[in-house]
This record gives sequence, C-alpha cells and structure tokens, in this order.
Amino acid sequence: MKGTVGELGEFGLIRELTSRLTTTPNVRLGPGDDAAVVAAPDRRVVATTDVLLEGRHFRRDWSTAYDVGRKAAAQNLADIAAMGAVPTAVLLALVVPAELPATWPIELMDGIRDECQVAGAAVVGGDVVRGDTITVAITALGDLRNREPVTRSGARPGDVIAVTGWLGWSAAGLAVLSRGFRSPRAFVEAHRRPEPPYHAGPAAAELGATAMTDVSDGLVADLGHIATASGVLINLKSADIDVPAQMSDIGQAVGVDPLHWVLTGGEDHAIVAAFPPDVKLPARWRVIGEVLKAPGTPHVTVDGAAWDKAGGWDHFGDTTAQGAGD
Amino acid sequence: MKGTVGELGEFGLIRELTSRLTTTPNVRLGPGDDAAVVAAPDRRVVATTDVLLEGRHFRRDWSTAYDVGRKAAAQNLADIAAMGAVPTAVLLALVVPAELPATWPIELMDGIRDECQVAGAAVVGGDVVRGDTITVAITALGDLRNREPVTRSGARPGDVIAVTGWLGWSAAGLAVLSRGFRSPRAFVEAHRRPEPPYHAGPAAAELGATAMTDVSDGLVADLGHIATASGVLINLKSADIDVPAQMSDIGQAVGVDPLHWVLTGGEDHAIVAAFPPDVKLPARWRVIGEVLKAPGTPHVTVDGAAWDKAGGWDHFGDTTAQGAGD
Repeated sequence: MKGTVGELGEFGLIRELTSRLTTTPNVRLGPGDDAAVVAAPDRRVVATTDVLLEGRHFRRDWSTAYDVGRKAAAQNLADIAAMGAVPTAVLLALVVPAELPATWPIELMDGIRDECQVAGAAVVGGDVVRGDTITVAITALGDLRNREPVTRSGARPGDVIAVTGWLGWSAAGLAVLSRGFRSPRAFVEAHRRPEPPYHAGPAAAELGATAMTDVSDGLVADLGHIATASGVLINLKSADIDVPAQMSDIGQAVGVDPLHWVLTGGEDHAIVAAFPPDVKLPARWRVIGEVLKAPGTPHVTVDGAAWDKAGGWDHFGDTTAQGAGD
Repeated sequence: MKGTVGELGEFGLIRELTSRLTTTPNVRLGPGDDAAVVAAPDRRVVATTDVLLEGRHFRRDWSTAYDVGRKAAAQNLADIAAMGAVPTAVLLALVVPAELPATWPIELMDGIRDECQVAGAAVVGGDVVRGDTITVAITALGDLRNREPVTRSGARPGDVIAVTGWLGWSAAGLAVLSRGFRSPRAFVEAHRRPEPPYHAGPAAAELGATAMTDVSDGLVADLGHIATASGVLINLKSADIDVPAQMSDIGQAVGVDPLHWVLTGGEDHAIVAAFPPDVKLPARWRVIGEVLKAPGTPHVTVDGAAWDKAGGWDHFGDTTAQGAGD
C-alpha cells in the first residue's frame, strides 16, 4: 500500500480497512450498511466508548500504528470485561490527516482486529474522516451471559480486594521511553501493547465479585472510584503487592519508587475487584487489600495512610506523561 | 456556567454533562461505571458510529453548540432507523480544547439529549478528552423488534423507490449561509438541525421494504449505494420529485438548479427505500422512481440519464461545502 490517505480517498480507505476484518458468529451484519447488527443473547448489551489522540495518548515515534490499534481496542474491551461481560463487537470512528501514509490507518485496523480476536470480538463498523489530529474513538459492546453487571458500587465492609493482570508495567515503560531509552523491552512492550486479562472479568462475576473495575487511571485512583461509589474505605497492604525485581532496577535507575508505578500507573488494564471474604480465587488473583467502613469520606489508603503522591490522571491537567513523574 | 473547559476540569465537565441527562426504561445502567448496560429485547443490537469535526462538518459561527448536538445525534439515530430499528441509546466521545467555554460542551450535550428524546433514545455513556479540534464521535444503538434488518442489498427489479422526510433543505440552507445570508430561515434551520423521520424506518420495515437507507450523502449517491449493493439500476422520475417553490426562489437568487440540491444534498436524513410494487404507502411517502435490471454496472439515473453533476461527498476530496457548488 503506497501513497497517502488523501490519495487513497475516503471510499478507497474504507474498502482497504473493511477488507482486512474478520468476523464471529455474533456478527449478524458487518460493515458496509447504515449500521451493523450484533447478537445480544442476554437481551441486554454492555457498551462503552473511549477516545485516543495523537500526542496526548500515543506518539507515532514511540508506538507503531499496529500497537496503537491494539491499545485502543484493549482499553475499551477491558471496560467491557470489567463489567463481567464478554466482548462481542467494536466500532471505530477515525480521524486521519490527508497527508498520513495510508499504511498507518491500515496497520491501526490490523491492531484493532487482532486485539478484538484476543477478546473474542470483531470490528463491525466505523467512520473515517479527514482532520488535522489522528483521533481514534472506539466503542465496544459486550454480552453479560445472564449475569448481573458488576458495577463499582457493590463493595461491602469485610470484602477483600483482589487484582489480576499487570500493574505499573506500562508506567515503567513510559518512564523508560520518556527518558530516551528503548529497553528493558518487557516494560516498553507493556506500554505499547497492554494485555488485559479479559477472561478474568466474567470469571470474577461468576465468583461473586461485589464490585469491579479495570485499572486504567491507576490502582489507587480506580479503587477510589469503587470506594466512592460503594461508600467504603479501601485499605491496600503494600506487603501483599508484588513489585517485580526488574521494575525495582528501573526505578533505581530513573529515581522513581517502583511502588508508585504499581499504585498509580494506568493503562495496563489489570482487573481489580472486591469479593466476599470467603471467596476461593484462582491462582492468578492476588489479594492486596480489604474493604472497611468509611469513617468519613470514602477513600483509599495504603497501609492505613493516604498515598500522598498524585494518583491517576486528569485529562485536562498539565501532566502529559502518566506515571512518568515522581 | 462560567469559565473554560480547562478551568472546569475533566471530572467537573463529566459531572456537568451527565447531570443533564434523562433516561428511559431501556437504560439498565447509565453513565458513571466502566460501561453502560442497555436493553436489547430482540437479542440483537443495531450499532453505528459517525464523527463530526469542527470546520469540516460544522462551524461555530453558523451553528450553536445545541444545534451541533442535535445534528450529531440525528445523523446517527437516522442510521439506526434506516435499518428498520428503533433507537435505544447513544454514546459520546468528545474532544474539546481546554480554552473552549464550558457552556459549549454542555449545550452540545443538551442538544444530543433532546434529539435522543425525539427518537426515544437516551445518552448512556461517553468519554471526554482535551484536544485542539472539537470532535464529536457518536455511537447509536437500536433494537429491531423481531424484524429482520432492512439492508441496502435487497432491492429487486420491479420494486418502487419511495422517500419520506426532507430533501435538499440542508443543502439550500448551507448555500444561503455560505453566501453570507441568514435567511430564508426555514432552510438555514434545516441545515442547522435536521429532522429525520425516525418512525418511518421501522414503519417501512413493517411495510415490507426490500432495501433502505437514510439520505446523508445525497439522494443519488445514497441510492447509488443501494443500486450497487442490490445489483440493480434505479431510475428516478424528476416529475415525481417535489421542489418547493421557496427552494426554487433561492436557487434563482444564487444561481443553482434547486433540483440539484434535492438530488445531491445530504444531511437532511430523509429515509429512502425500495418496496414491492403493490405496497400501500402512508401519505407522507412519495414514490419517486423504480428499480430496473442493471444492463451493466448498477447505477442511478434521473429520467433515464446519468445525473451528471457531482453527487454525494468524498470526505477526503477538496469540496468543503456539500451541495453548495453548482
């Protein structure tokens, strides 16, 4: 594929993009009509949308188009899983500059398609328009399989807090990249391409999770959403939170407490949930804290104290590199 | 509401936006969690997405934020109706500059909410991020009520082509605006705020429509999609196509054949469909053409000849004002 997006034209680009897609039995009508039709066996559909901007959420010199596609799909599909649902379909609204090489949106779509396949979903529709800033807005749909959605508001005092997936890897990778390095590769790769544990969301719902979310803004910030919605205090025990040795090494090299990445780094899309205390969790879940009565304002503590470094990320704030500061 | 989007902050803005929303019985879980949950009684969900950019699809000096919201929602909800489905829910991915007055996204949301109410739907989720160009990406969902979707591919030789809704009004309004005028108001209003006949989509499905679409790129262009998908020739009869007297007056004033607006103007989101010849259509449908065997490449003719002026709109082309040229 040679030339630019402008040379290929809107319809030429849409043809290229849709020709690369795969399907699933849930796709009753794919791209090419006024709308798609997707199975919703549960008689309810779970839906979420997220938007990524070049310069703000990704950089073309740090991530390939394919990786941006994987990541953009992953963050939406993880939101579906975090409700306890199984992802079924994705729609893409894409803004691309006319002078962008046509290979870029095509490789982006390959990434979205492949991440959808990992999660069991398929791309069913989209829209492409010309604009100055590459903008990737994805909507993901999912099916609850006759279980109730696991919201953020059901955590009860006495519950345990458990997590599965990666924590702080993306933030450590970003710290490496923003200092001009390209290794250690495991962390850089984790920043470029998260691996959310999609299966863990529905599995947690089946195990009786009382509240759940994916870690997109950072563990403390996202558990803060659960604390607020549930009206509880959540206390994390740092001794129960793994900090990989390799992450400690990078932390030392760049002068960052690696626990900070683990507690405040988003974008790995780990799944964190509250469970009744007697739950029997599969091996890859780690109990990292407990749910307590909120003495005042619901919030999150680490070893009984506020985690006083900035957690999470306000998209309108001045911070441009999540978790990269100290 | 004073101040800018940046002063209000991401979470403050999201609070303002979600506090204004209304709900429907189809909304099982609204905004505020990882994802929303919407009823899909049919066990299938219809889904579509479209993106609007400032400067390309709307101008802040020509349209209020409220009107942009109405229009952005309308074009997605019309796509749902054009499948024969009933709109249920909408998700919004919004990019706004930090220096934008906070009233702008709030009034935009009011417009989206109100247009959803017209169509029987509700806003259930979204994402807001900061960026240079106002970008409004909307995803709409709908329910087929146990009917099969009406695609673009079912038109058969012998069918009649019928349309309901407005044709060319938005294009005439744009022509007026782009020449520096603000009246006649009916056309300017039609450009700012389309009124798709949402009910007509499911009604047409019930009446046995064999193919259907909404008119977003222009009547000839959109029927061209049906002709191609169905492998047929579609012939329109200009004598059966109304050109309102007021539109003729504007055409004369600005030197444009008003039939050109009717045949190639998009954005009014009329609904056009093919029906079996014996169909009994309600009063507001007008039969404007017929479906014939394609002698070669499927296409659309007007009175047996190609409509030789440019129809439709390639978003990567150089045309910036749809239907405004001659």
